Amino acid sequence: MSASLHSEKQFFTFANPAEKQEKMRLESGAELGPVTIAWESWGKLNTDKSNAVLILHACTGDSHAAGIYGNDTKAGWWDFLIGPGKAIDSNKYFILCSNILGSCMGSTGPASIDPQSKAPYALDFPMMTIGDIVEAQKELLEHLGINRLHAVIGGSVGGMQVLEWCARYPERINTAIPIATTMRHSALAIAFNEIARQAIMTDPHWNKGRYYQGELPATGLSVARMVGHVTYLSDEAMHRKFGRRLQDKESFSFGFDADFQVESYLRHQGSKFVERFDANSLLYITKAADYFNVAERLTANSPLIEADKSKKIRYLVISYSSDWLYPTYQAKELVHTLKRSGQDVSFVEISSDCGHDAFLIPEPTLPQLLSGFLAGGNCA
Amino acid sequence: MSASLHSEKQFFTFANPAEKQEKMRLESGAELGPVTIAWESWGKLNTDKSNAVLILHACTGDSHAAGIYGNDTKAGWWDFLIGPGKAIDSNKYFILCSNILGSCMGSTGPASIDPQSKAPYALDFPMMTIGDIVEAQKELLEHLGINRLHAVIGGSVGGMQVLEWCARYPERINTAIPIATTMRHSALAIAFNEIARQAIMTDPHWNKGRYYQGELPATGLSVARMVGHVTYLSDEAMHRKFGRRLQDKESFSFGFDADFQVESYLRHQGSKFVERFDANSLLYITKAADYFNVAERLTANSPLIEADKSKKIRYLVISYSSDWLYPTYQAKELVHTLKRSGQDVSFVEISSDCGHDAFLIPEPTLPQLLSGFLAGGNCA
Repeated sequence: MSASLHSEKQFFTFANPAEKQEKMRLESGAELGPVTIAWESWGKLNTDKSNAVLILHACTGDSHAAGIYGNDTKAGWWDFLIGPGKAIDSNKYFILCSNILGSCMGSTGPASIDPQSKAPYALDFPMMTIGDIVEAQKELLEHLGINRLHAVIGGSVGGMQVLEWCARYPERINTAIPIATTMRHSALAIAFNEIARQAIMTDPHWNKGRYYQGELPATGLSVARMVGHVTYLSDEAMHRKFGRRLQDKESFSFGFDADFQVESYLRHQGSKFVERFDANSLLYITKAADYFNVAERLTANSPLIEADKSKKIRYLVISYSSDWLYPTYQAKELVHTLKRSGQDVSFVEISSDCGHDAFLIPEPTLPQLLSGFLAGGNCA
Repeated sequence: MSASLHSEKQFFTFANPAEKQEKMRLESGAELGPVTIAWESWGKLNTDKSNAVLILHACTGDSHAAGIYGNDTKAGWWDFLIGPGKAIDSNKYFILCSNILGSCMGSTGPASIDPQSKAPYALDFPMMTIGDIVEAQKELLEHLGINRLHAVIGGSVGGMQVLEWCARYPERINTAIPIATTMRHSALAIAFNEIARQAIMTDPHWNKGRYYQGELPATGLSVARMVGHVTYLSDEAMHRKFGRRLQDKESFSFGFDADFQVESYLRHQGSKFVERFDANSLLYITKAADYFNVAERLTANSPLIEADKSKKIRYLVISYSSDWLYPTYQAKELVHTLKRSGQDVSFVEISSDCGHDAFLIPEPTLPQLLSGFLAGGNCA
């Protein structure tokens, strides 16, 4: 595996009334503008602009999928997959990843300044959907002159964006790789998101979203992250990682300190998250994920695709055996939906005891699968 | 199925320094007294006091396992199992259930008045264990002159008490029926309890446990209950019960109201719980459950049991196929542990899509199993 690339965050702004552009109209009917999207890229766009691979990040991710910023030592979150000679090969492809609309990692979200009030949007930020997230990505691609994608690849909420791209713009996609994802949230997945939201919204510092000038809803956000974190792991992974081992102790404290390693780990994950993520962004993105429901739209678009073979997408659906947030049965529902509508679908369930987060863990199966499948598609 | 019995809560106090009794010494080394235990019973104790069946309740349960209070219409939580002619037959057995130590449903717990400070104990209440809970139950039984139990039966944290009874006093037990339980909490189970505790302890109204004179930590307790509630259900049960159905709406609110039925259900469960349960009690009881670890002690006591056939316990271990809090593999570990030490063990995994809470749902399999197994044991 080669070394990591250098990487740099870039910004693209559209729907800017100051430049006489129309505001972005969202699925809810609300309007938003200007909209800035933070993005990064690796590799070079070829002359006919046909080698672009769009990487789509998960709920609390960012554009930093690969490479290293300046003098940093830590590489991006999918650096084991993306780079020269790697599975998503930056010597072949122009790979790009943008931070999603509504996030807080460089793109416009509830923490951004509302040009009307000159204060952060907070809850005046309009509710957005996975569809709106995809529309903002499309603006960026059009700005770069990319009309067709060699591949769209993403895990979890990133996988939802893959499917949303396929439902909206099948004619623009060659290969789609949705990983550890679902066509729609189950009641269980909605329940965990709702608990996370309630933890935030019942923190008195949340203050109906207007906390940017004062104390952050740190305790609520921390509990929300703990809930999320547990859903990303598996029973087996937690057993292997922590079991019932005690934290810095020979015996029980008989108090409410963290006795077990798993307790202090979760507390640590919670407080670390508060430093890097905005509570309101988590509210908006989890709600967008709960609203997401692509099943019918994937089918509705299929007659069009079937009529024109060149518009057929090659799908590789990947699930993980121990993912209980988006279990394999949901990936199979996706496969059946795509198959029923005559799509070209491959499906792999990767055996892993790492739970939902397995797609972020550097291990050889995912790179092997992606590398083989991407090579099989014509870079038209 | 016969009608429900009348039921009445009774109180037994021991370890009372005012009556020159020694305080109760807890496993942590701390002392506690006086200790009151609330209890209820159904059926009559026979003359040789050999027909007693002890029912052990789960985390937030109470002594009201069966029957109806006064003019109430709602019967106790296991009324489908307990009563005349029912699986645990009050015509045959003297059935009793006591509220656990540390709870808030009549027994001494953190909300009780500390005789020293004349104020509620709050966090001055000593940390207690499942062993301490069992010792308090033993005091009650000795007060009633019951030296041997025909059966001990309980689900979830009640099942832990069953196993603790077997580890501590195998010579006092004829039949033991641990249901939907475990020999020790997995990291996953500890994680969910810790999230619930953090939700409570980060609520500013919690005030380090001293909230009894002011506002309750209602939002924290409500979120804690939501977390607990989800772990009691299953993916399938939630799908059947709620799916993605919307609450009182034709379409999405595009706001942070409860759009989905599962969201408003959880919010409702959370706020209902605040009315009936004390936040500090939840902290103490969840911690006792996390500390619980009976595996080695069940084995250590076995040579004694093997040496004397009359002291052998008949076990019926029951798990539920969709319980992901205490999954069947953990029940099997218990069965293997008991088998390895030469115990008389039957094991049934009940097929159910209702998750952990299945043992509380009136359906015919559990009554049939209990009725048959209890009849098989000699009421010595």
